[in-house]
Amino acid sequence: MKPEDIEEVKKIVKMGRVLTDESDLFSYSFDASFGTYLPDLVVQTKSVTELAALVKLANRKRIPVYPRGQSTCLSGGPLPVKGGMVFDLSVMNDVLEIDEEDLIAVVSPGVLTADIHRAAEKKGLMYPPDPSSSHVSTIGGNLAENSGGPRGLKYGVTKDYVIGLEVIVPEGEIIRTGGRTVKNVTGYDLTKLIVGSEGTLGIITKAILRLLPKPPASETVMAVFDSLVDAGGAISKILSSGILPAKMELMDQASIIAVENYEPSNLPVDAEAIILLELDGHPVAVKDEVQQVAELCKAVGAREIRIPGNEAEKAEIWRARKLVSPAIVRIKPTKISEDATVPRSKIPDMCARLQEIRRKYNIHLVVFGHAGDGNLHPNIIADKNDKEEMKRVEEAIAEIFAAAVELGGTLSGEHGIGTMKAPFMEMELGAVGLDMMRRIKQVWDPNNIMNPGKIFPEPGQKLELT
Amino acid sequence: MKPEDIEEVKKIVKMGRVLTDESDLFSYSFDASFGTYLPDLVVQTKSVTELAALVKLANRKRIPVYPRGQSTCLSGGPLPVKGGMVFDLSVMNDVLEIDEEDLIAVVSPGVLTADIHRAAEKKGLMYPPDPSSSHVSTIGGNLAENSGGPRGLKYGVTKDYVIGLEVIVPEGEIIRTGGRTVKNVTGYDLTKLIVGSEGTLGIITKAILRLLPKPPASETVMAVFDSLVDAGGAISKILSSGILPAKMELMDQASIIAVENYEPSNLPVDAEAIILLELDGHPVAVKDEVQQVAELCKAVGAREIRIPGNEAEKAEIWRARKLVSPAIVRIKPTKISEDATVPRSKIPDMCARLQEIRRKYNIHLVVFGHAGDGNLHPNIIADKNDKEEMKRVEEAIAEIFAAAVELGGTLSGEHGIGTMKAPFMEMELGAVGLDMMRRIKQVWDPNNIMNPGKIFPEPGQKLELT
Repeated sequence: MKPEDIEEVKKIVKMGRVLTDESDLFSYSFDASFGTYLPDLVVQTKSVTELAALVKLANRKRIPVYPRGQSTCLSGGPLPVKGGMVFDLSVMNDVLEIDEEDLIAVVSPGVLTADIHRAAEKKGLMYPPDPSSSHVSTIGGNLAENSGGPRGLKYGVTKDYVIGLEVIVPEGEIIRTGGRTVKNVTGYDLTKLIVGSEGTLGIITKAILRLLPKPPASETVMAVFDSLVDAGGAISKILSSGILPAKMELMDQASIIAVENYEPSNLPVDAEAIILLELDGHPVAVKDEVQQVAELCKAVGAREIRIPGNEAEKAEIWRARKLVSPAIVRIKPTKISEDATVPRSKIPDMCARLQEIRRKYNIHLVVFGHAGDGNLHPNIIADKNDKEEMKRVEEAIAEIFAAAVELGGTLSGEHGIGTMKAPFMEMELGAVGLDMMRRIKQVWDPNNIMNPGKIFPEPGQKLELT
Repeated sequence: MKPEDIEEVKKIVKMGRVLTDESDLFSYSFDASFGTYLPDLVVQTKSVTELAALVKLANRKRIPVYPRGQSTCLSGGPLPVKGGMVFDLSVMNDVLEIDEEDLIAVVSPGVLTADIHRAAEKKGLMYPPDPSSSHVSTIGGNLAENSGGPRGLKYGVTKDYVIGLEVIVPEGEIIRTGGRTVKNVTGYDLTKLIVGSEGTLGIITKAILRLLPKPPASETVMAVFDSLVDAGGAISKILSSGILPAKMELMDQASIIAVENYEPSNLPVDAEAIILLELDGHPVAVKDEVQQVAELCKAVGAREIRIPGNEAEKAEIWRARKLVSPAIVRIKPTKISEDATVPRSKIPDMCARLQEIRRKYNIHLVVFGHAGDGNLHPNIIADKNDKEEMKRVEEAIAEIFAAAVELGGTLSGEHGIGTMKAPFMEMELGAVGLDMMRRIKQVWDPNNIMNPGKIFPEPGQKLELT
């Protein structure tokens, strides 16, 4: 950025701070994905008016703008790949209202998702989306990326709970989409267009979220399998039995062992796979469904069913599932976390393709995730300083994407496209499909200032990890 | 249309028919809303390739294209207001596949919604959206308008169940959006943009719908109130009790009396309001919730609770609810059915405003609808030949919209904007919000051939019923 533009930014920001020291900028150069990029400056302000004025300036001077929450993003969403300004929206954490009568929450983007969970539960309500990072991630980031999570199986993803937004569009105007009603068909659904657009269509400065009554009971079941294929079979069996679990998670042997080495959690290290289920609803119904699930799992070959007897045992099981990500990073320093998703019936096929890819490229591949909705998380563990290994990883990733699309699936179930998956967009969408998306971007953001470098591939762009 | 353009259409359509007789065209000149408009011709073909070729022709020659299902639309969606071609998609009814493993249905647009319900139920599954017209409306129309229905309270609306589409975009290319996975964040959510865009962004030629396991039990409760306000109170009470009914419908005294005069249904004609509830889920849970609901209603003043003892009695209650629409048309020939929607907590305020509007303009106003989600259906009954009355109706409608927006609600909860509500769009969205929608329309349909005259107001456009 030119010095005079930086001066103009400082003049606009009266209620917050502008950071320009290199040590500060470095803290804003990365997320939980791959690569580091320094911005020219970072803005911290709670004022929507100031942010809108900055966007107008950015649009006039063609300065890239990168909105950012807590940067737990796994796809590069907040990376300032073209320099310019980062807006640190984690400071906008002052609004968190629960309206029990309307069954909604009104939140500002910097509020932590877990704080919304807690606030809703205090009133007997529930905000269902539960990305694994919810204790540290902001709702603004969840909205930009349309985050999922284990409860997606029964309850859907972030987008399914957003009914209204306040947004600064790329030319600096402020619009309000949707509202406080659960039903709204007044014109195009800009709310659902903007949620999941990865910050490329505007900056969300407020959101209205739909809440549900909290189910009065929930129980957990762990089913242990000597065969990954049998585990896949159990998942199909349960889904077609008329029971819809709140969560149905899969961990393969590699992830079980990684967790046990990281923090002993009483998991069966000799099992080829485990399934973790949560059932919720009316207490009597839940008890009955637990028994049905146990019987179904046994019928397809589960060697053991564990039903925790108290809240502490339940918590231990779900804690073990959350430990997979930190645990596997201990094996090698670089983790590339994918979320290629396939139709539910193709889970066994996808597992087989992943095992093939692991052998073919001799990579360290761990598979776990939200099996109930076909959203597996193949994670590759590597060392980014080992260039030869990273080349193999690049090829393996491209083949994982191709396998998912061939099986009728998608590049990304819940992490977003960001930087790394952009080169593969046309493979899934076709040239015309991608063009129809790009038209929207161009007509909303004619100067391409809003989170540029994301979603849309640049000519000839390839995946590069070295 | 020019004779040579009509000839070209006839050359393209080899697998279907082109209708040009005036008597045929008349059948395509109206829907369930207001006004009649003759198209120049009607195309009936099952061939997506032929339809795409016709759209290319239309785009080149700037001929308006109007997709149409069974035309049960209450907002003018399929009306060919600018002449041109109507595509009768009700003939595309050949695809209806239920995939039990993936928990999806794949359908072509002319399939009746009720046929999807039946096909899913045969396999123990459920397609939740249930617009009152489902026995006669096509899924294509439901998709274009994002139809709701009583089960919206617990299960959401059409859009919440669409995960993939095949679409002919306005320049005649065919794109596929989403797919067979319940999670997909690959780029912008074109699926949810197109569903509910009222046929202005393209023609849906196939859809992939998400299904749920069918709940094993369901029960019905009728609560009878001597006061409309108490009925409103009961609705809030139930929603904040932790129970989420599948349906919660309100009928006011005018609609009760209309139904009883139309077809005696054992409804209490002396009651000021009744609430009809359906609870579904595990059999034990449902039984327990029925008791809780009954007690809650009594506590806020219900004079009587009726719990039907068998399927026939249940069916009679829900049949009575479905009879409201046909019943009220018997009072006077012209029915204007609105769906202005308010936040749940504002239902009593909206009821009061509607009573005020009824008195002020001396109109015949009946109120019923999906009270649980704030989606009331104020219906005005009039005679379109009575110009003086219709002027009062025009003013009353404008005031209903203003009241809904003032109370934090929306012009339309589930019927769509179409022709009649277009003049009120800016009131709800503001000039910039409307402009951001219009930009998408313009960049997707630069020649404005796809269902022109809908959603977006023309300069100076006003509501005119005479």
